Amino acid sequence: MRALRFVDKKLSLADVPRPERPAEALVRVVKSGICNTDLEIVRGYAGFEGTIGHEFVGVVEMADDAPELIGKRVVGEINAGCGKCDRCLSGDPRHCPARTVLGIVGRDGAHAEYLQLPSRNLLVVPDNVSDEQAVFAEPLAAAFGITEQVDIGPETKVAVVGDGKLGLLCAMSLGLRSKPIVLIGKHRRKMSIAEAHGAEGVLRGDVTPSMHREFDVVVEASGSESGFATALDLVRPRGKIVLKSTFHGTPVWAASRVVVDEITIVGSRCGRFAPALGLLSEGRLDVSGLIEDEFPLSKGVEAMAAAASRGSRKFLLSAAN
Amino acid sequence: MRALRFVDKKLSLADVPRPERPAEALVRVVKSGICNTDLEIVRGYAGFEGTIGHEFVGVVEMADDAPELIGKRVVGEINAGCGKCDRCLSGDPRHCPARTVLGIVGRDGAHAEYLQLPSRNLLVVPDNVSDEQAVFAEPLAAAFGITEQVDIGPETKVAVVGDGKLGLLCAMSLGLRSKPIVLIGKHRRKMSIAEAHGAEGVLRGDVTPSMHREFDVVVEASGSESGFATALDLVRPRGKIVLKSTFHGTPVWAASRVVVDEITIVGSRCGRFAPALGLLSEGRLDVSGLIEDEFPLSKGVEAMAAAASRGSRKFLLSAAN
Repeated sequence: MRALRFVDKKLSLADVPRPERPAEALVRVVKSGICNTDLEIVRGYAGFEGTIGHEFVGVVEMADDAPELIGKRVVGEINAGCGKCDRCLSGDPRHCPARTVLGIVGRDGAHAEYLQLPSRNLLVVPDNVSDEQAVFAEPLAAAFGITEQVDIGPETKVAVVGDGKLGLLCAMSLGLRSKPIVLIGKHRRKMSIAEAHGAEGVLRGDVTPSMHREFDVVVEASGSESGFATALDLVRPRGKIVLKSTFHGTPVWAASRVVVDEITIVGSRCGRFAPALGLLSEGRLDVSGLIEDEFPLSKGVEAMAAAASRGSRKFLLSAAN
Repeated sequence: MRALRFVDKKLSLADVPRPERPAEALVRVVKSGICNTDLEIVRGYAGFEGTIGHEFVGVVEMADDAPELIGKRVVGEINAGCGKCDRCLSGDPRHCPARTVLGIVGRDGAHAEYLQLPSRNLLVVPDNVSDEQAVFAEPLAAAFGITEQVDIGPETKVAVVGDGKLGLLCAMSLGLRSKPIVLIGKHRRKMSIAEAHGAEGVLRGDVTPSMHREFDVVVEASGSESGFATALDLVRPRGKIVLKSTFHGTPVWAASRVVVDEITIVGSRCGRFAPALGLLSEGRLDVSGLIEDEFPLSKGVEAMAAAASRGSRKFLLSAAN
């Protein structure tokens, strides 16, 4: 089968054997989405080698331990735990110390014709959710997963720093809990996608001191040191900063501000898929405006290059072509 | 009256007028405690000029709006709010944006014969709490205040990094909620004070990888970059680091660890006095082992120099002498 692989520091479309671990379900990938994490892997940040990609929708072809899934259209939680540790037994393999992560840690990923995951990781996609929407289940779960960690209600003043794909999904999904979300970004065109969902876009250069210390919760989704500094400016005393993007480099931070104003910084990575699928199925969120373009899997290398261009939205790969 | 003052980058014992703001209570200071914050002020870190000191026990001599306090032995919450903003009206002036802070921000402090605070800041000291114990109300409130921000129960695995005065008070007071607290320090002699209260002392150099990712809550009370790095090593995925000490400089932090392991960092400064006084009155905590020496106020400059020596415990000043 064809797979988009990063091996020996080189990205290429390769022909590899179809995976065949009998203990796991086999999924024929229909569409996959290119995430910034994929771009970081090919920049060499993550130390991963193999088939990249972790956002997908597909159809189950084999599942020995869950035959009811065969033929079903599914998305999949990307962390595969050992199934035996305390974390896994409590139903949350996202922090299993022995976990593999689809296309990120120790497990071939989704930019391929087929992938494997434990059947317990798979969720059936409701019929009224299109393939193009379903492929957003993973990043939307990551965005909306913030509500698992931080209370956000109608009165919570929320700002999101960063108008990349994840920042937009944060602004759009958190806007279902509290409005208006203030979105601090650099691209009017991208911010307009979240503005259509009720967010208030503000260019980074237009942040005024009157906005400082005004927000109960600030989501840092820019992945930049300056974004973190902006988040620290915006958050109120005893407020919370949600770190949604990994940084590379060594952010300088005003630790004294964090202590004196008793600010809480919450690291946040993966969310649960079921609530995200629920939002899509109930039509509460329209992600179609987030799609920039779709390429066939055979043009995966080109799609990755296009996705890396500044200010782009989501690129999808279609494995059927 | 005599006061220990930091003015024009110089610490000296000065003779100054007794304060006489009619809207505030006048307190004759009996004893005051030297805190690391005092040492940082005289190193020029805090930008404060005036009479230093914020840990005290004293006797109320005047209080126009609370005559019932006159003659009473009191301690005092150090943040004086405007009394009008949302924070103050909710009963918590600790984050009032217009606050002054005794001996730290815009308000003369406690290393003096007299000080003033709003009468609402004062708490009467129970008779069974000695002056030597009562002077610990402020730092003990700061240590035990962690429980206002982070849930700590019998099953919570807690480590404290730093065996300075605040670290010891954290280990001793949190040990009333969960045992054993693991205290990571550099001085066997100082750690033994907390060990007498049930803590388990471990020298920083003896921290092994088997301790990594084992703790639900890690309190960083060393105020050093390496202490923060140790805290990051010790905390488990989805665990919490409480930042209790301000850093100066620019700590390098593994932001990716914070995001991937969804760690929460909680800035923590002041706590409420009433629970701290309660612990002292109920005899649940013996702070006498934390006292290194007592100097008369007239020897305040010498006491500050002694307090700055490495590895020392708490120095008290006695205003009566």
